[in-house]
Amino acid sequence: MTHTYSIGIDIGGTNTDMGLVRDDGAIINRSNIPTNAYIDLQPYIRDMMACINKMMDESNVESIEGIGIGAPNGNFYTGCVDNAPNLTIKGVLNFEQEIHHYMDVPVVLSNDANAAAYGEMVYGGAKGMKHFIMFTLGTGVGSGIVIDGKLVHGSTGAAGELGHSILIPNGRRCTCGRNGCLETYTSARGIVQTYFELKGTPVSADIDSKAIGDMANQGDPVALKTWETVADQLGLAMANSVNFSAPEAIFLMGGPTKVGDPLLKPLQKAFDKYLLNIFAGSCKIHMSQLKANEVAILGAAALIKMKE
Amino acid sequence: MTHTYSIGIDIGGTNTDMGLVRDDGAIINRSNIPTNAYIDLQPYIRDMMACINKMMDESNVESIEGIGIGAPNGNFYTGCVDNAPNLTIKGVLNFEQEIHHYMDVPVVLSNDANAAAYGEMVYGGAKGMKHFIMFTLGTGVGSGIVIDGKLVHGSTGAAGELGHSILIPNGRRCTCGRNGCLETYTSARGIVQTYFELKGTPVSADIDSKAIGDMANQGDPVALKTWETVADQLGLAMANSVNFSAPEAIFLMGGPTKVGDPLLKPLQKAFDKYLLNIFAGSCKIHMSQLKANEVAILGAAALIKMKE
Repeated sequence: MTHTYSIGIDIGGTNTDMGLVRDDGAIINRSNIPTNAYIDLQPYIRDMMACINKMMDESNVESIEGIGIGAPNGNFYTGCVDNAPNLTIKGVLNFEQEIHHYMDVPVVLSNDANAAAYGEMVYGGAKGMKHFIMFTLGTGVGSGIVIDGKLVHGSTGAAGELGHSILIPNGRRCTCGRNGCLETYTSARGIVQTYFELKGTPVSADIDSKAIGDMANQGDPVALKTWETVADQLGLAMANSVNFSAPEAIFLMGGPTKVGDPLLKPLQKAFDKYLLNIFAGSCKIHMSQLKANEVAILGAAALIKMKE
Repeated sequence: MTHTYSIGIDIGGTNTDMGLVRDDGAIINRSNIPTNAYIDLQPYIRDMMACINKMMDESNVESIEGIGIGAPNGNFYTGCVDNAPNLTIKGVLNFEQEIHHYMDVPVVLSNDANAAAYGEMVYGGAKGMKHFIMFTLGTGVGSGIVIDGKLVHGSTGAAGELGHSILIPNGRRCTCGRNGCLETYTSARGIVQTYFELKGTPVSADIDSKAIGDMANQGDPVALKTWETVADQLGLAMANSVNFSAPEAIFLMGGPTKVGDPLLKPLQKAFDKYLLNIFAGSCKIHMSQLKANEVAILGAAALIKMKE
């Protein structure tokens, strides 16, 4: 059987992870460079391309279908990263153009949550689904939306920012400058803030969302109440999103979702409670079926499939 | 020049309005029957088809491209109206099948707000737009969403229910049985409720949203404050919807939007305030460019264009 291959690149503020991905979803080689060691695009792309060529040589892969990139502020339409605040390389960065100086293959960019959604459809639990939404919980809260089997990019290329939908008018201050965004409640930091609010003590850097998850699984009542609160907020946001595109499933991924029952049991209840009656039973909640350390690369690589 | 024709049908709880629509968007003949005079589908469709044949005869139109129907709970995928609470004809009503007993033409159903959005794209101010959202304000609040030039139906056929997105958790009681839906604040009834809440007196049936509009345009401070409040709520919901599909425009239609500046000026301010920074300037607010007494028929007729 002849395989085809693509490259998936996950650009984070600290590291850039690259993987050589076989068409069956196996990552057959990996590499990385430190994103924050660069302040200019050219040397960054030069070193990135050197890694890609090295991976291909090592794995005896002669050609690839394309390069998919998941990046903060990655714009599908332009092939650029637009002024990403957490990158040391500033400005509007034309990845597609720069990569084409080295290799004449399709280059597809999107933001990391969109890439995760697409990866779930191509390689994960959303195979065959036409309508679903992915929520990614981590430092921030992202989302990727698939309608009729296509990722929603919208008119600007930046669609799918449900983490910045305002959940609670005049609520918590968000890094985006507004108040009450979903992200301020259900990101890792939001969860920690809720825990200390319920506990009635100042926020301590000693406890992260993972620790609150462990405490909840050991029966700590404040930790359990924290996850119930988060579940109620996330369930409301998920139910609201169903009104938009009537997805057949909502997928969840990211560190905080790993806590299990303390989040997932009250989440199903909250989702059912907040879901408009005409959608009752039509939308399932699923966990991402991709491995945490593979999803970003697989999602990026999957973006190439959109060019087909 | 040879024209083509289609039929647009707007099914309301009280009346069923039918129009013979020319491909340039002119309604060249109209007819109607009282929806609430029927409790069975067969005689209702029989009389509807008699009207359609009469309109075609009168206007010397020999053939039509199809019949488009905007109906409460109209399901695009099944061609059925599913248990619409405000119709006297109960159950799951297979319009497509029943109409095909009389005429072998394409039949397309959708809910009224979806039809309005599509009508705006085919005949109105959204011509040529690929990404926009229509909010309809009236007895309820509906929405129709267009992405990549296609109406979003979702996995169930019932997508686009932004009037039932929860705007204010634990807010006003909604007819859907939940609390805090956008509709409870920005429907005609919600606006009246806000007026009397601000005035501090019990709700009186003597004053409707039109009267509150007239008062605002005459400078009444409570009425002006009412529209500012509504604008803030609607602006927030609109900004949240941009996070989903990054539309290039949001269209508004329906009675309450006719008030003009008392709503529209604070609405633009609220929208700008609540919009995520990455979308700043990318999405315009427009009023529907279709006439109030034509939009439902044109929207329904436009649905036929989806079959092409």
